[in-house]
Amino acid sequence: MRRIIVQKFGGTSVADTEKIKNVAKTVIKEKNNGNNVVVVVSAMGHTTDYLVKMAKDLSATPSTREMDMLLSTGEGVSIALLAMAIQAQGYEAVSFNAMQVGIFTENVHSKARIIKIQTEKLKQNLNEGKIIVVAGFQGVTEDGEITTLGRGGSDTSAVALAAALNAERCDIYTDVEGVYTTDPRIVPKATKLKEISYEEMLELAHAGANVLHPRSVETAKLNNVPLRVRSSFKTDDMGTLILGVNKMEIDKPVTGVAADLSQARVVVCDVPDVPGQAAKIFSKLAQEGISVDMIIQSYARKISNTNDIAFTIDSTDIEKAKETLDKMKEQIHCGEIQINSEIAKVSIVGAGMIDRPGIASTMFETLANLDINIKMISTSEIKISCLVDKADAKKAVQALHDEFNLSSDTIAEVKGDLPNI
Amino acid sequence: MRRIIVQKFGGTSVADTEKIKNVAKTVIKEKNNGNNVVVVVSAMGHTTDYLVKMAKDLSATPSTREMDMLLSTGEGVSIALLAMAIQAQGYEAVSFNAMQVGIFTENVHSKARIIKIQTEKLKQNLNEGKIIVVAGFQGVTEDGEITTLGRGGSDTSAVALAAALNAERCDIYTDVEGVYTTDPRIVPKATKLKEISYEEMLELAHAGANVLHPRSVETAKLNNVPLRVRSSFKTDDMGTLILGVNKMEIDKPVTGVAADLSQARVVVCDVPDVPGQAAKIFSKLAQEGISVDMIIQSYARKISNTNDIAFTIDSTDIEKAKETLDKMKEQIHCGEIQINSEIAKVSIVGAGMIDRPGIASTMFETLANLDINIKMISTSEIKISCLVDKADAKKAVQALHDEFNLSSDTIAEVKGDLPNI
Repeated sequence: MRRIIVQKFGGTSVADTEKIKNVAKTVIKEKNNGNNVVVVVSAMGHTTDYLVKMAKDLSATPSTREMDMLLSTGEGVSIALLAMAIQAQGYEAVSFNAMQVGIFTENVHSKARIIKIQTEKLKQNLNEGKIIVVAGFQGVTEDGEITTLGRGGSDTSAVALAAALNAERCDIYTDVEGVYTTDPRIVPKATKLKEISYEEMLELAHAGANVLHPRSVETAKLNNVPLRVRSSFKTDDMGTLILGVNKMEIDKPVTGVAADLSQARVVVCDVPDVPGQAAKIFSKLAQEGISVDMIIQSYARKISNTNDIAFTIDSTDIEKAKETLDKMKEQIHCGEIQINSEIAKVSIVGAGMIDRPGIASTMFETLANLDINIKMISTSEIKISCLVDKADAKKAVQALHDEFNLSSDTIAEVKGDLPNI
Repeated sequence: MRRIIVQKFGGTSVADTEKIKNVAKTVIKEKNNGNNVVVVVSAMGHTTDYLVKMAKDLSATPSTREMDMLLSTGEGVSIALLAMAIQAQGYEAVSFNAMQVGIFTENVHSKARIIKIQTEKLKQNLNEGKIIVVAGFQGVTEDGEITTLGRGGSDTSAVALAAALNAERCDIYTDVEGVYTTDPRIVPKATKLKEISYEEMLELAHAGANVLHPRSVETAKLNNVPLRVRSSFKTDDMGTLILGVNKMEIDKPVTGVAADLSQARVVVCDVPDVPGQAAKIFSKLAQEGISVDMIIQSYARKISNTNDIAFTIDSTDIEKAKETLDKMKEQIHCGEIQINSEIAKVSIVGAGMIDRPGIASTMFETLANLDINIKMISTSEIKISCLVDKADAKKAVQALHDEFNLSSDTIAEVKGDLPNI
């Protein structure tokens, strides 16, 4: 059997019929390379917003089950149109929604995880020479309920399909040209990486580089699927390959710098220093679906026998967190709750830092030299993150990018909507 | 188990979220009557046109398989939104597409017929007290291919569901208030019928009264499902009940008058009078998917030993018929092919005419008194149709309506887009 390449195109790549025609050309080019091609697409451009708006007209709290029914129609449109566009070029194509393929998920609405994918029908159609177009973002339960996968869903669909089909590679076509050493709009000399390891990509994604959702990278890592991030517009460019071993940049301790401006810092002051207080707070936040990133607990003050617990959350969860913690105040007998969203998490990532001491101190010194105050620190094997004032984020990224020699001589060109600093 | 009522709402009834809220109210009203309710909906207003336009942008001849994939998303949107609107009123509701229900059709795209419907899931959800919203117009094959039902599809989905569920009744909500003795825009005193038999409704539908597609009436007749045509706007009005026995109007030979302006007359001149010529023509037309309605073959002319074959087709098929017949000219050695779309088929329908002689002659006399030339005649047990000039259609309908005493004393109110004469 021929090699299988899975390609994924997001909503902006299929936003109108002209763009769909372009996608068809990219798909056919891969087919003409002698490969079997499975294409995963998202809903067209603003379809999802439009559907959500109608739902909100009808109900302040539409049921997640019906929201999944509604939203899944978006990819239903784009897959059929792309299949037609491919057929119009004289190639055989067939579209399938998740129910038809058998992309089975757990029985959870709006953020289901993929459990297994049936490959019989896909393989049969590939053997007949057809290009297959599959709806991303959606799944089906064993009971025939339609689910959606939540954030990063379409990328995850593509990676999971690549894993199930034992594909040669999964190409994620996007509006940027690949993974850069940092956001090229902050550092114009940022370099596009030819290769990066899953681990580094994961850390970069968690650190705020929003090229790929961490979930799709995790799925690729778990199943050892080589993942390529490449441009929908410059299809000759091979973008960045994400795979098990980072062959490049092994001489550099740091692969990339990222800033995440979407977090807020919460400080719960004067928490009595008795066991189980932190557990109470974080288990309650978890129950409410609030994800916590960095956590710091200060040493207990000798006199008051209390300490402060600080952590970061996503800014969109501020209101919910406030409400949840206010309700707990009596239970944990704490003091004031401070929330600050004028912060940024600046991170350096690199598998090369594992065996090299001094990377963290170089980072701290670089920031200190700029008079940037570090509010919190968190580290993993291949990442160091510092929480700083939002106003300092840009110069921190620029200085770290320079310090760790990540700049290329050519100025990077980037399109798309990376976060503004 | 409680009685089951199936309700069907067309595209104009669910054209926007405000209208969907109104539909939700009508649905809930029936639920509050103590019935189990299954609602069938079409795609929202102009969704289908919009989808077709995009498909045409991509391909002059999109595959019917992918068109079915594309169009079926339209009902996917409306069912989810209606379920949300019902839930917002505090009632339990669940939406299902045809694949989820198991509305099985033959393996034909764009005009599939329903073979069987699975009722387990529906009955289970009804027993749990839920209102069920089902996608009309679509089906699925045993192989999991998505199909659409073609013209009259959503009405047929509703009737077939009512049959499968052994429903008490199938209510077709539409933009007219019921079935009238004729088009009230031609005859303001046209009467809304309280009841009409399947047979009469079928003949009226075939004769041009476009309240219901004949196919849905046939399905209702076959399965003995009482069918009610009623207004989406005046939901207190019980509309017209279509059922096995016409209890009303038994004293009147004629139940309704209809005009069909959508036909064209084709005359194939000078066809040599040898056996098999008509068969050749009509089998070729059938192969091309052109439906033929009235057919007349003249007596063979003694001198030339040829005859003329005249028949009517749908105006939309004129070009295709011309092409098909032009290609056959050599094969059948005929003369000129004349096509005239300035004609109208005027029909009177009534089960009461079965045992009463003289109805046909009364019709012909009425037309003759108005100097209306009859070009073709066709009859069935309960229908007589005359082909006349389009310009004469209106006065023919008015005169026949008077002649057969169909007028009420109150002037009918009608909304919606009945064909203009």
